[in-house]
Amino acid sequence: MMTPETMNQVLEAAIDQARKSWSEGGIPIGSALAREDGTIVAVGHNMRVQSGDPTAHAEIVCLRNAGRRRDWNDLYLATTLSPCQMCSGSACLFGVKHVIIGEHETYLGAEHWLEEHGITVDVLDDPRCVELMRMLQTEKPDLWAEDIGE
Amino acid sequence: MMTPETMNQVLEAAIDQARKSWSEGGIPIGSALAREDGTIVAVGHNMRVQSGDPTAHAEIVCLRNAGRRRDWNDLYLATTLSPCQMCSGSACLFGVKHVIIGEHETYLGAEHWLEEHGITVDVLDDPRCVELMRMLQTEKPDLWAEDIGE
Repeated sequence: MMTPETMNQVLEAAIDQARKSWSEGGIPIGSALAREDGTIVAVGHNMRVQSGDPTAHAEIVCLRNAGRRRDWNDLYLATTLSPCQMCSGSACLFGVKHVIIGEHETYLGAEHWLEEHGITVDVLDDPRCVELMRMLQTEKPDLWAEDIGE
Repeated sequence: MMTPETMNQVLEAAIDQARKSWSEGGIPIGSALAREDGTIVAVGHNMRVQSGDPTAHAEIVCLRNAGRRRDWNDLYLATTLSPCQMCSGSACLFGVKHVIIGEHETYLGAEHWLEEHGITVDVLDDPRCVELMRMLQTEKPDLWAEDIGE
């Protein structure tokens, strides 16, 4: 299993992605895919504003960047925010076995689908992730509403 | 509600997409998004082989092609094959209210998630859709296994 220190490092890579997206005028949600030892395999951030693609959530972009592969079972998917139904479904489909979540107090996605699917879920309650979403909700509430399908 | 004739027309647009993908060497699964009167809003087909993007399932590509919009509630999403967890999750997230499925005997996706979410599901049991998947499974079994995360 990944150590708590390594989980924090992988989440850090996801936070860097979220900040990058925010600096581009986009939604500050980021994701990273890593091996158990913390080696980063792929990263991605929400691209909906940047590319106009409504499916370009951080986790989807990260999985896309990881490309076609068969080692999903060994990888840990980190995301700064609790994954929505699409992104949780993608973790189930690809066969990722571990999901690391920055925070789920701003938005609780479909974590129960992950758990029903036997995926381990670690919620790190990281204040930096909460702050990223607070910025979005305060400064760009419409963008946030669109992101969660409201 | 969409009439059965219109549902068949919309599925036909999805089948055309599936055939286009197969002719390109790709996975023969297609999708279409339409209004209640049958007006096609967007189409898409699986692009995993063509683009190397593992998330490029037909429904995801179709939703991507539909772009950022707020009328998801009024749209019908058609797909030649029962939607996997990622694609079912995306229908739930976007707030599509109706999903038309060509067939679910080759593969049964996460239709229960759609139903739990109050989405109407119409399975048309179309033999053309079954035949498309039979071609894939017979001629390119590895591609199929990768597509469903095996």
